[in-house]
Amino acid sequence: MDIAKPYLLFLGDVKDQLAAKTAQGVVDWRPDWCVGQMRLEGCKADCGLKDVTIAEAAAKGAKTMVVGVANAGGVLPDHWVARIVEALNQGLDVATGLHKRLGTIPEIAEAAKRNGRKLHDVRYTDMTFATGKGTKRPGLRLLAVGTDCSVGKKYTTLALDKEMRARGMKSDFRATGQTGVLISGRGIALDAVIADFIAGAAEWLSPANDADHWDVIEGQGSLFHPSFAGVTLGLLHGAQPDAFVVCHEPTRTKMRGVEHALPSIADVIERTIVEGRLTNPKIACVGIAINTEHLAEKDALALLERTGKEHGLPSVDPIRTGTGPIVDLLQKRYHA
Amino acid sequence: MDIAKPYLLFLGDVKDQLAAKTAQGVVDWRPDWCVGQMRLEGCKADCGLKDVTIAEAAAKGAKTMVVGVANAGGVLPDHWVARIVEALNQGLDVATGLHKRLGTIPEIAEAAKRNGRKLHDVRYTDMTFATGKGTKRPGLRLLAVGTDCSVGKKYTTLALDKEMRARGMKSDFRATGQTGVLISGRGIALDAVIADFIAGAAEWLSPANDADHWDVIEGQGSLFHPSFAGVTLGLLHGAQPDAFVVCHEPTRTKMRGVEHALPSIADVIERTIVEGRLTNPKIACVGIAINTEHLAEKDALALLERTGKEHGLPSVDPIRTGTGPIVDLLQKRYHA
Repeated sequence: MDIAKPYLLFLGDVKDQLAAKTAQGVVDWRPDWCVGQMRLEGCKADCGLKDVTIAEAAAKGAKTMVVGVANAGGVLPDHWVARIVEALNQGLDVATGLHKRLGTIPEIAEAAKRNGRKLHDVRYTDMTFATGKGTKRPGLRLLAVGTDCSVGKKYTTLALDKEMRARGMKSDFRATGQTGVLISGRGIALDAVIADFIAGAAEWLSPANDADHWDVIEGQGSLFHPSFAGVTLGLLHGAQPDAFVVCHEPTRTKMRGVEHALPSIADVIERTIVEGRLTNPKIACVGIAINTEHLAEKDALALLERTGKEHGLPSVDPIRTGTGPIVDLLQKRYHA
Repeated sequence: MDIAKPYLLFLGDVKDQLAAKTAQGVVDWRPDWCVGQMRLEGCKADCGLKDVTIAEAAAKGAKTMVVGVANAGGVLPDHWVARIVEALNQGLDVATGLHKRLGTIPEIAEAAKRNGRKLHDVRYTDMTFATGKGTKRPGLRLLAVGTDCSVGKKYTTLALDKEMRARGMKSDFRATGQTGVLISGRGIALDAVIADFIAGAAEWLSPANDADHWDVIEGQGSLFHPSFAGVTLGLLHGAQPDAFVVCHEPTRTKMRGVEHALPSIADVIERTIVEGRLTNPKIACVGIAINTEHLAEKDALALLERTGKEHGLPSVDPIRTGTGPIVDLLQKRYHA
């Protein structure tokens, strides 16, 4: 799916900043694409953009209104529906990551049709994919893997892509989750693909490319997560990464949503290589990305240093320290 | 999905016996459920049942017409549509494993509605599942795994279930593929589930049960197949098998549909234990099932003996030698 830019970010009237984390991700990584934010009375989120009306955003050239908020149950409240219809009437497309499909709401479907506008439900895909073939294709690929879900794979890959581009390397961020799709304006929410086509969808997502071009692929789940390991494995096989980065959140005590303990970083490195070799015998770990936001600066830096020494790999916090050392290794190993 | 029995098996006018393998599977494993077969002029398949008209089948009490044939592309020819409408008019439900959903064909949808009949597209599921929880539930579970796709997992589990029931053990065959669903009259085609819910669907499929009850779960794909390993891993995690049987086809030279070499049986045993321990630390291999149909009797028996010795496990061909030695081991190990 390709989402037209620039965006108007719709924040609705959500009750806290966390509910607007998708919108915040778009602002953090693609500020140039955002013409403003639209908030309803009582909204407790603020992404730091100028507050605009839909008409003002349209006048500024906005092409898509992104509903960048999650509310309980992914439902779409009635008073949001009216604003979505207004956006369509003003000539904007609308994109959301909600559970409820926009097109299943008659007023929205009708307004989209009448105005010839597109509705993007990024949590879903109506595309059909081939099954994965497992044959190696040209180009370099890096995949984020993790000790758990929600440990910073998206931020890590976005930060790597940004750093690589800043150094003049050929790089594309490849989104595999709904927020990533909104941030990058394309991609697929891999967890919404029919099970038989996970690997095939990952192959489609990162097609053959120049020999020195990197696809920097957002990871999903964890090989050690009992709910989602199947998705993780299918993505690993389809992505065929040459290089992977292990993402980790050091304060988590058990895996997200289940009772399982977290694997160690060493476990993840070993298992990713064992499984990843099926479609890329050269797969190698090139770094560790630790989300240290809950640690004091001193503790964070000490943890990064200790982890780096233990594994003999660059260890970074993409936000706190940047991804430079990992990109240094990529340049040395793959572009020397 | 629960499919009403008994069945009328519709064979259409397919060009060879292989195209009727779903129907043949139903006849082989559930002969008591079949009131007859319905063939059109030019049909080259024969499942050995009495040829009946739809009206005759209805008079004999048939509740569902099973379209147990696959034609190129999974398309539904127009002259089959007329027979499906006739079956609905005669008061039968209709079940198929075709790609084309019955309800997307207006005449069929209308006839089903008018007659208050059910349409079962076993390749699809509209059920919603929870994500897998990974917590152990009561009851014993056996899963078939394989060195490849299409190596006899379904037949192996059906044969194990039959043998276990014959010995008075508590056992249910749990179908995870479309043919298995038609054979058992319930279950889900796991490869049609949304990726995030593979493990959750497998948990739903084999719910908590008596401590001495076996769910004998049809396997899917292979941990070593680059197209489908994600489905295999999600099923393994959701099934939480206590015991597994490795299925193998000894004459295959590469994995189905791709260029990859087959793993060894030892590879599959080792990897299944490594991955399966995440949700069941007691997972163990209890046997090897080899499809020896392409070998001469002498070679087949020699291969089974050699394989059994090499791995220290009962090695059988479910069709040629029966599954007795595996069930012996189950009784000794889990019911002593």
